[in-house]
Amino acid sequence: MGKRIVIVGGVAAGPKAACRLKRLMPDAEVTVIDQDSLISYGGCGIPYYVSGDVADEKELRSTSFHMVRDEYFFDKAKGVKTLTSTRALSIDRENKTVQLEDLKTGMRTEIEYDTLMLATGSQPVVPPIPGNDAEGVFTVSDLHKAIAIKDMIAKGKVGKAVVIGGGAIGIEMAEALTDLWGVETSIVEYMDQLLPKIIDWPLATILEKHLRDHSIDVHLGEAAEEIVVQDGKVVAVRTGKRTIDADMVIMAVGVRPRSKLAKDAGLLVSASGGIVVNERMQTSDPDIYSAGDCVDIIHLVSGKRFVAPFGSMANREGRVAANNIAGIPSVFKGGVASFIVKAFELSVGSVGLSLETARAEGFDADFSLSSPSDRAHFYPGQDIICLEMIFDKRTRKVLGLQGTGPLNDALSARIDAAAVALSVGATIDDFANIEMAYSPPFSSAIDPINAAAYIADNLCDKRMRQITMEDFYSWMANPSSNPDWQVLDVRHETQAAPFVEQFGSSLWNSLPYDQVRDRYLELPTDKKFIVFCNAGSRSFEIQVFLDSVGLTNNTVLPGGFNVIKRMGAEWLPVS
Amino acid sequence: MGKRIVIVGGVAAGPKAACRLKRLMPDAEVTVIDQDSLISYGGCGIPYYVSGDVADEKELRSTSFHMVRDEYFFDKAKGVKTLTSTRALSIDRENKTVQLEDLKTGMRTEIEYDTLMLATGSQPVVPPIPGNDAEGVFTVSDLHKAIAIKDMIAKGKVGKAVVIGGGAIGIEMAEALTDLWGVETSIVEYMDQLLPKIIDWPLATILEKHLRDHSIDVHLGEAAEEIVVQDGKVVAVRTGKRTIDADMVIMAVGVRPRSKLAKDAGLLVSASGGIVVNERMQTSDPDIYSAGDCVDIIHLVSGKRFVAPFGSMANREGRVAANNIAGIPSVFKGGVASFIVKAFELSVGSVGLSLETARAEGFDADFSLSSPSDRAHFYPGQDIICLEMIFDKRTRKVLGLQGTGPLNDALSARIDAAAVALSVGATIDDFANIEMAYSPPFSSAIDPINAAAYIADNLCDKRMRQITMEDFYSWMANPSSNPDWQVLDVRHETQAAPFVEQFGSSLWNSLPYDQVRDRYLELPTDKKFIVFCNAGSRSFEIQVFLDSVGLTNNTVLPGGFNVIKRMGAEWLPVS
Repeated sequence: MGKRIVIVGGVAAGPKAACRLKRLMPDAEVTVIDQDSLISYGGCGIPYYVSGDVADEKELRSTSFHMVRDEYFFDKAKGVKTLTSTRALSIDRENKTVQLEDLKTGMRTEIEYDTLMLATGSQPVVPPIPGNDAEGVFTVSDLHKAIAIKDMIAKGKVGKAVVIGGGAIGIEMAEALTDLWGVETSIVEYMDQLLPKIIDWPLATILEKHLRDHSIDVHLGEAAEEIVVQDGKVVAVRTGKRTIDADMVIMAVGVRPRSKLAKDAGLLVSASGGIVVNERMQTSDPDIYSAGDCVDIIHLVSGKRFVAPFGSMANREGRVAANNIAGIPSVFKGGVASFIVKAFELSVGSVGLSLETARAEGFDADFSLSSPSDRAHFYPGQDIICLEMIFDKRTRKVLGLQGTGPLNDALSARIDAAAVALSVGATIDDFANIEMAYSPPFSSAIDPINAAAYIADNLCDKRMRQITMEDFYSWMANPSSNPDWQVLDVRHETQAAPFVEQFGSSLWNSLPYDQVRDRYLELPTDKKFIVFCNAGSRSFEIQVFLDSVGLTNNTVLPGGFNVIKRMGAEWLPVS
Repeated sequence: MGKRIVIVGGVAAGPKAACRLKRLMPDAEVTVIDQDSLISYGGCGIPYYVSGDVADEKELRSTSFHMVRDEYFFDKAKGVKTLTSTRALSIDRENKTVQLEDLKTGMRTEIEYDTLMLATGSQPVVPPIPGNDAEGVFTVSDLHKAIAIKDMIAKGKVGKAVVIGGGAIGIEMAEALTDLWGVETSIVEYMDQLLPKIIDWPLATILEKHLRDHSIDVHLGEAAEEIVVQDGKVVAVRTGKRTIDADMVIMAVGVRPRSKLAKDAGLLVSASGGIVVNERMQTSDPDIYSAGDCVDIIHLVSGKRFVAPFGSMANREGRVAANNIAGIPSVFKGGVASFIVKAFELSVGSVGLSLETARAEGFDADFSLSSPSDRAHFYPGQDIICLEMIFDKRTRKVLGLQGTGPLNDALSARIDAAAVALSVGATIDDFANIEMAYSPPFSSAIDPINAAAYIADNLCDKRMRQITMEDFYSWMANPSSNPDWQVLDVRHETQAAPFVEQFGSSLWNSLPYDQVRDRYLELPTDKKFIVFCNAGSRSFEIQVFLDSVGLTNNTVLPGGFNVIKRMGAEWLPVS
C-alpha cells in the first residue's frame, strides 16, 4: 500500500491536491474529509446560481464535461476516497491521526496519515448584532445556504432585501437579487465606500453610481446595528441612521480563515487567523501541509503576510502542496491580490495595493488616474476604462493597479498583465513598456497600461501636478472655499458650454486646447487653474505649456470628464 | 532658441517622440518631416476603414477627442513644426544637416539638427512578379492606397479579389473585402499554413477553417507567379497550380525596414535591414536616434535581433527615444512579439516563439496544447479557447504562447499576461502560478494560462506523453499506416458513438472516463492507445492510470475534440 494522505477540506484546494496527488502517486491512498455533504463546488459561482444565470446548483459542482463531482466521481474517476458529512475534530500529531465524527451517525473514528493536508477554508464573519440568527438571515458560505436563498426568493417570499457589506460578495449578491428577481435591495456598508481597501474612492464612487443606476440603495458609513425580527423572521435592518425593511438579509462582511483545528493542534497560526505556511505550503509541522482560504501567504507587493480567499489561489496552492507532498519540490511565492468583480454592466478590478492601503503600509505612494479607450478609439464599440495606478515615488515601483470598465475582458487583461509585473517588482518604466498585443479590435497603439505608467512617470518626475478627485469634488460642492480656483476647460467649446452656463465663466473658463498657445495671454493671472479635459492628457499638455510661459499656478484634474461623468455629482450639468 | 530636433517620419514613432519632446523641452524646436501629405495615422486601422467599420479615413488620423492630426494640429496643439510632402534625401552627419526635397515644388533645401531621429518606418515588400504594377494591384502601405482600395470597391468595380500573403494584414484585408462588400476573395500563401512563423499548424488550421467557413478561398503552399493583366488592369492571378480571376489584388507579403537613408549615411544597419539601435534607441551615431518599424530590436526570448513592425511598439520606442534625447535616461529592453488579429468571429494571438521557430532557434522545445473555457465553464456565454504553450525542456523556460478564441478579449488577456512573463524569462513554474484576476464572469478557478503550464510541467517531467496533431491527422487520413493504433475515447458514450460507428470499434474504442478503473481489463493489450477526450485533461488522467496498471503503450491527443472540431477534417463524423 502506498502513502496515506489525508486531506481535511473538500471544496477547492483539497480536491485539487487530492487529484493531483493520485496522478503523481497512483499508489497513494488519498482521503478527503469534509463536514459538508456537498463538496468540490465553485463557491464563487453562488451569486450566479442565485441570480438564475446558472440554473442548477449541480452545475457549480460539475466538471466542464458535465459530471457531478460527488463521492462516486472522486472514487471512480479520480481514485480518491471521500468522507463527506464527516468532521475532523482534532489532530494527534504524535501518532499522526485525525479524530473524526460522522455527522449523520455521531460515530467517532480516527484515521491515520503519513502526510496531512489542511484545506479547511474560511468561514463567514457573522456580525455580532441582535437578530443575526433570525429566519431570512443568510451568509453566502456554502451551497446549502445558496439553495435556501434561491428557494426563498423563487417562492416569492422576498420583496425587499438588505445586503450587509459592500465587498465583492455583497455586490454580486445585490445584483443577483435585483437583476432577475426584482427584489428591492439595499447595501449597508460600514466604511465610507464600496470595496474598501480594494479600490480607492473615485472608482468606488463609479461603482456606487452604477449600483444606484440599477436601483440598488447604497448606504455608506453606516453600521447595521440590529436585525429587527418578528415571529422569528427578519423584517428590517436598523442602522445608526435608518431602519430598512427587509424580508431577507445577506451578511457579506468578509470571511476569516477556518484554522481552529490547526491551532488546537499547536500549529503556527498568524494574528489574522491564517495558518502559517512556508513557500512549499508546509505548516510548522513538516508532515502537515495547508492551502486555500485557511492559509496566510506573502503579499508580494507589501512583503507582509495576508489571507487571500480566492478559489483560484486555492487551486494553485493546492497543486504546489501536492507536488511537495509527492516529493516534487515546488514553491508558491505568494500573491498580489488580483481581483475582479462584475456589477451589472460594469467590471471593477484591482491588483496590488490601493492608494490608501499603500500609504497605510508606509509607502511614499501616489497615483495616476486616466480614462482611455479599451481599444482603438476609432474601432466600433470601443468604451472607456478608468484606471488608477499606484506607485512609490521613491523607488518608482508600481504598487497597484485598479480600474472600472465595460462588461468585457478589457479591464481583466490589464489587471492580469499588471499581476505578472507586480509579482516581479516592476517599476513605472517597466510598465511603460509592457507589450500588450495590439490590433485595433483589441487594444490601442498606446495601451491603457502603458499610458497609466506614462502619467505615473510624469508625476514621479514632477513634470505633472494634479488635484485629487476628493479635493476637486469638495471644492465643486463649495466653490467659495477656494474663490481663487478656476476650471480651465480645454475641451471643445460646445462641450464646455453647459458648464460655463451653469457655473459662470469666472469659475468655469473655456479655452480650447488648440487655441491656448495663441490665446494664453487672455487668461487671468490671479487664478489657480484646474485644467480640465475628457481624459486628462490634454490637460497635462496644457499644464506643461502654461508652465513654460510662466503661468505655473495650475493643476490637472486627472482622468477628466470621463471619470466624473461616471462618478456622478449633484453639480454636474444635466446632459 | 532651444535645441533643434529633426525627426524624419511622421506616422507613429515620429509624432510620438515629437510631442513628448515638446513636453519635456518646451523650448526645443521640433520638426517632423514626412514625404506623405497625410501623417500621424493609425495604419493598423486601414482594414477597418476598407471594411466600412471605420467610415472615414480621417478617423484613423484623429485624436480620441476628434481632432484631425494634421499640420495645423501639430502646430497649434503640440507646438511641433511639420514639413509634409517633403522627402529627406540624405544626412550630412558631419555638418549635422538633412537634405530635403519639397515633393510639390521639387525645391531642395536643408535643415540643421542638434539631434536627429529616424522614424522612417517600413515599406511593403512587392513580389517581383509580372503585372505587379497593374491597375487594381495594391499594397496596404498608406492611407492613399487605403482610400484608393475602398473607392474602387465602393464603385462596384470589384467582384473578385486575390490577397497575396496569409499574414495578419492579408487576413484582415480578406475579411474586410468579404464581410461587408461581399467580394469573392482568395488568399494565396506561399508557405503551407496561414500566419507562418507566428503560430503553429494546428492553430493555423483552425484559422484556415474559419476563413473557409466565411467563404474565403485559401490556397496554401502556392506562390503567386504572375498577375495577369489586360488593358493595363489586373484580371487574374496565376499560381503554380491555378489561375484565379481577380479585379483587385492586395499584396500583403510583409514589410521591410525603410533604412536606406540611414545606410547611405553610414549608420549601422543589420542584415535584416533594420537600423541597429542600443537600449537607449541610439544609432551608431550618438546624435542620431531611431525608433519604429525601421529599427532592429532585441527579441527577449530568442536573444537575437529582430524587426517588430507594430504601431504600438513604435509608440513605446518613440517615447524612450524622446526621453533620451531630452536627457532623461530611459531604456527599451526589447520585445517579445506580442501579436493579435481578428478574423471574423475568431481571435488569433501569439507571443514569443512558435514551436517551429523555437526549434529553428536551437531550443529543446516542446509544446502543450489545451482547449479550456475562456471563463467559468458554468457561466453563460463561456466559450473555448485553444492554447499552445511552447517551452524549453532543458531550462523549463516558457518560450511562447499562442491561441485562438472567440471574438472577445479573453485570448488577449492571456497573451498580455504571457508577454510580461516572457519579458522576464519566466519558467513553466512561474506560469503555473500567474495570478489572473478570478471571478466566474471573467475567468476560471484554474485559468487557461495556469492550466497550459500544468500540462507543460507534466510533459517536461515526462509524466505525460502526447501525439502531435500532425501525426494524428496523418494517421486518421490513412489508418492502415499504423494498424496497431487505437483511439481510446474516454468521453461519454453518446459523444463517442458517431465515431465508433464511422470507424468501427477496433479503431475507435469507447470507454468512458469514469469506467476505466473498473473495466480496463477489457482493453486490448496489442494496441497503442491514443487517449481522446474533449480537452485532453481526462486523457492525461487516464494515461496516468493506464501506466499504473502496466498498459503503458498509450499517448494523449492534446487539446482533444475541442481542437479538432475547430480544425476540421474530412474524416470527422458529420455532427
